[in-house]
Amino acid sequence: MSKIYKITEIIGTSPRSFAEATQNAVKEAGKSIKAMGWFEVDRLGGRIEGDRVSEFQVKLKVGFRLLSPEELKKA
Amino acid sequence: MSKIYKITEIIGTSPRSFAEATQNAVKEAGKSIKAMGWFEVDRLGGRIEGDRVSEFQVKLKVGFRLLSPEELKKA
Amino acid sequence: MSKIYKITEIIGTSPRSFAEATQNAVKEAGKSIKAMGWFEVDRLGGRIEGDRVSEFQVKLKVGFRLLSPEELKKA
Amino acid sequence: MSKIYKITEIIGTSPRSFAEATQNAVKEAGKSIKAMGWFEVDRLGGRIEGDRVSEFQVKLKVGFRLLSPEELKKA
Amino acid sequence: MSKIYKITEIIGTSPRSFAEATQNAVKEAGKSIKAMGWFEVDRLGGRIEGDRVSEFQVKLKVGFRLLSPEELKKA
Amino acid sequence: MSKIYKITEIIGTSPRSFAEATQNAVKEAGKSIKAMGWFEVDRLGGRIEGDRVSEFQVKLKVGFRLLSPEELKKA
Amino acid sequence: MSKIYKITEIIGTSPRSFAEATQNAVKEAGKSIKAMGWFEVDRLGGRIEGDRVSEFQVKLKVGFRLLSPEELKKA
Amino acid sequence: MSKIYKITEIIGTSPRSFAEATQNAVKEAGKSIKAMGWFEVDRLGGRIEGDRVSEFQVKLKVGFRLLSPEELKKA
Amino acid sequence: MSKIYKITEIIGTSPRSFAEATQNAVKEAGKSIKAMGWFEVDRLGGRIEGDRVSEFQVKLKVGFRLLSPEELKKA
Amino acid sequence: MSKIYKITEIIGTSPRSFAEATQNAVKEAGKSIKAMGWFEVDRLGGRIEGDRVSEFQVKLKVGFRLLSPEELKKA
Amino acid sequence: MSKIYKITEIIGTSPRSFAEATQNAVKEAGKSIKAMGWFEVDRLGGRIEGDRVSEFQVKLKVGFRLLSPEELKKA
Amino acid sequence: MSKIYKITEIIGTSPRSFAEATQNAVKEAGKSIKAMGWFEVDRLGGRIEGDRVSEFQVKLKVGFRLLSPEELKKA
Repeated sequence: MSKIYKITEIIGTSPRSFAEATQNAVKEAGKSIKAMGWFEVDRLGGRIEGDRVSEFQVKLKVGFRLLSPEELKKA
Repeated sequence: MSKIYKITEIIGTSPRSFAEATQNAVKEAGKSIKAMGWFEVDRLGGRIEGDRVSEFQVKLKVGFRLLSPEELKKA
Repeated sequence: MSKIYKITEIIGTSPRSFAEATQNAVKEAGKSIKAMGWFEVDRLGGRIEGDRVSEFQVKLKVGFRLLSPEELKKA
Repeated sequence: MSKIYKITEIIGTSPRSFAEATQNAVKEAGKSIKAMGWFEVDRLGGRIEGDRVSEFQVKLKVGFRLLSPEELKKA
Repeated sequence: MSKIYKITEIIGTSPRSFAEATQNAVKEAGKSIKAMGWFEVDRLGGRIEGDRVSEFQVKLKVGFRLLSPEELKKA
Repeated sequence: MSKIYKITEIIGTSPRSFAEATQNAVKEAGKSIKAMGWFEVDRLGGRIEGDRVSEFQVKLKVGFRLLSPEELKKA
Repeated sequence: MSKIYKITEIIGTSPRSFAEATQNAVKEAGKSIKAMGWFEVDRLGGRIEGDRVSEFQVKLKVGFRLLSPEELKKA
Repeated sequence: MSKIYKITEIIGTSPRSFAEATQNAVKEAGKSIKAMGWFEVDRLGGRIEGDRVSEFQVKLKVGFRLLSPEELKKA
Repeated sequence: MSKIYKITEIIGTSPRSFAEATQNAVKEAGKSIKAMGWFEVDRLGGRIEGDRVSEFQVKLKVGFRLLSPEELKKA
Repeated sequence: MSKIYKITEIIGTSPRSFAEATQNAVKEAGKSIKAMGWFEVDRLGGRIEGDRVSEFQVKLKVGFRLLSPEELKKA
Repeated sequence: MSKIYKITEIIGTSPRSFAEATQNAVKEAGKSIKAMGWFEVDRLGGRIEGDRVSEFQVKLKVGFRLLSPEELKKA
Repeated sequence: MSKIYKITEIIGTSPRSFAEATQNAVKEAGKSIKAMGWFEVDRLGGRIEGDRVSEFQVKLKVGFRLLSPEELKKA
């Protein structure tokens, strides 16, 4: 069987950096998705309060492999 | 916990206008998604019959917040 | 014979809304094109007079099917 | 003297439609800008409350002519 | 009720061609999605081993209609 | 006289592959256009029936040279 | 009647500059199109012979107004 | 009155990271703009000296709300 | 203090060439902006009268450095 | 040492299909590049002779890993 | 053997015009590349000193054919 | 002689952040390229293991000046 991947779009946030916002998004996605393999950044942005960035936001496309029935039994 | 948002892609239709097509898409999405917060239009288009637009179509990216376990209990 | 579609680019205008500008463009295109099937919006814009939008403009890509010789006879 | 135009970016909102949101943005821009001539839509989006679009948003690039000193005296 | 469509993103693979990778993706998607209607290619790519393409990859956006409750009963 | 080229947009279809859809579009375009020289693919997509791609679609921009009056006499 | 515009795509060439290539394209287009109003540059490129640009190419989208029957009589 | 937002484009720099360059840009923008609400990253880049990045650059679009006359009095 | 740059969008025109239209835009921008450093072309276009380009237009993004209070005193 | 990849841009051709054009490009690139890992398609196009595609062209971005000195000795 | 082309990215500059900047880039590229065939403009920009464009910049993608061993012997 | 710049595309990686991945890419590029001047980020992405980003990836376009023969002697 040929491999099939799916893409999900998710936005992570962090008060400190784009990298941490990315980690937070991936960690959260991992609660419902198995076999994540890679991500691409679709957009960077954030919220401002006063004259400070209060929230860094990273919009990600996360790619994951659809598991075969055999793999799902073991997972 | 940092906030996490998800994006879903949906196309709404209307025989009258782009705004109504957008409302229809959001209303339908609301049947399965809680805590929707914003949308972006990805593409506008439609169907033509004879020399009339018979269907306005709006392709949306709808953003919604993933609820925490506490929020889910109350929802 | 496999189906073939052609695309034509047209800009419609309206003093009232994007939807009406779209209808106007499609109606006009229908004077010279048969078998139009769909459109995509390429750009939205308009003219301003004073502090009012005086003309809404919608740039469309209109798709239509090339009719076979048999169909053309009947059309 | 050759003509020179400037572009400003503005977002208008409306509870009803994209066309009205555009009108609102242009009206507001007209308070500080003279000689507006055209606009282009950069992005369409909005806010959602419950399962309804509560706010249509239109991000515009508005073009206006820089007036010559003679024109400014008359304005 | 106006028609509503949803979009899902999926990547299919094939050792032979882009067309076969597309077929594989659509076949797999069909296991969990009913009423698929069309697809758009978002990106083409692949893996290389030595000096050979070992895997053609096609990233698709697949559109499908949300079935009404009546249709779901029959499906 | 400097050379001038024109671009026409056309969509070809095939039940089998993107390459065949491209050939079909070009063959059809050749019925009304002389001196075609090159094409660019603008979008790939298609229709799905059940869990199979039933129609591969290729949207092309086809470039052709405008013939000079001398060339037109000979053509 | 609301105004309607059409867009045609054309490539002009010149051995000397992008501006001249643009002029050549517009002049040629004027042989078959009336009421041209504006153009947008879609792509700049060219041919190279040895280590010299031998041909500057400008791909244009030319906009023209569709004349009303009254205007066509006078034209 | 419907809400109106404006966008300004600014580039921040930092010798250390993209996040810090973003903070610097927002802080500087805050000297002349009130009521900033969000930002989007338009481009990331930087300067290189020797084999080191000496300056991280972040080009931002900063969105801010136009204050009503009442709000301006209080500000 | 880290360096901060701002971007302004402006359209210059010329009856002769894209380069001259660029010079005109920059010269005009210099009347109100100090410390301009670079530009990027966002779009090329123009107006047509009869079968001639009557106005070349260049839409520019002009970047300039925000001067520190010390520099402003000297300027 | 962290891994570093480089990208090279190449166009392959084939009289038959996009997939074969891709294989040809990769095979040729392999004569001078070691450790190729993946490719992305940047553009599809081709040449036309008469009413036939005579050459399918695929413009690829090929990614390859820079080998460490140890790996280069073994290669 | 099927033909293979490679793309290289280069930026040319000129104090006078975009066309001359293009010629300079191509001339320089010709010192190390044989068999250049075409170019595409990727971006136009430049430097500003005072209120003058002091340097026009053209970022090009230059395409050239990979010579076969037989051709290389003759070159 | 007018200045000429070249662009090379490279991907850097880091287990920690996008900024560090950028530094790694530039450091590596510096082993074979002299006179690097600036970079632009083309894409951000990465690998995921379990529910963690294990590798941040930054795809860069690095610009460097082609040295004149005199500069090369001194380098």
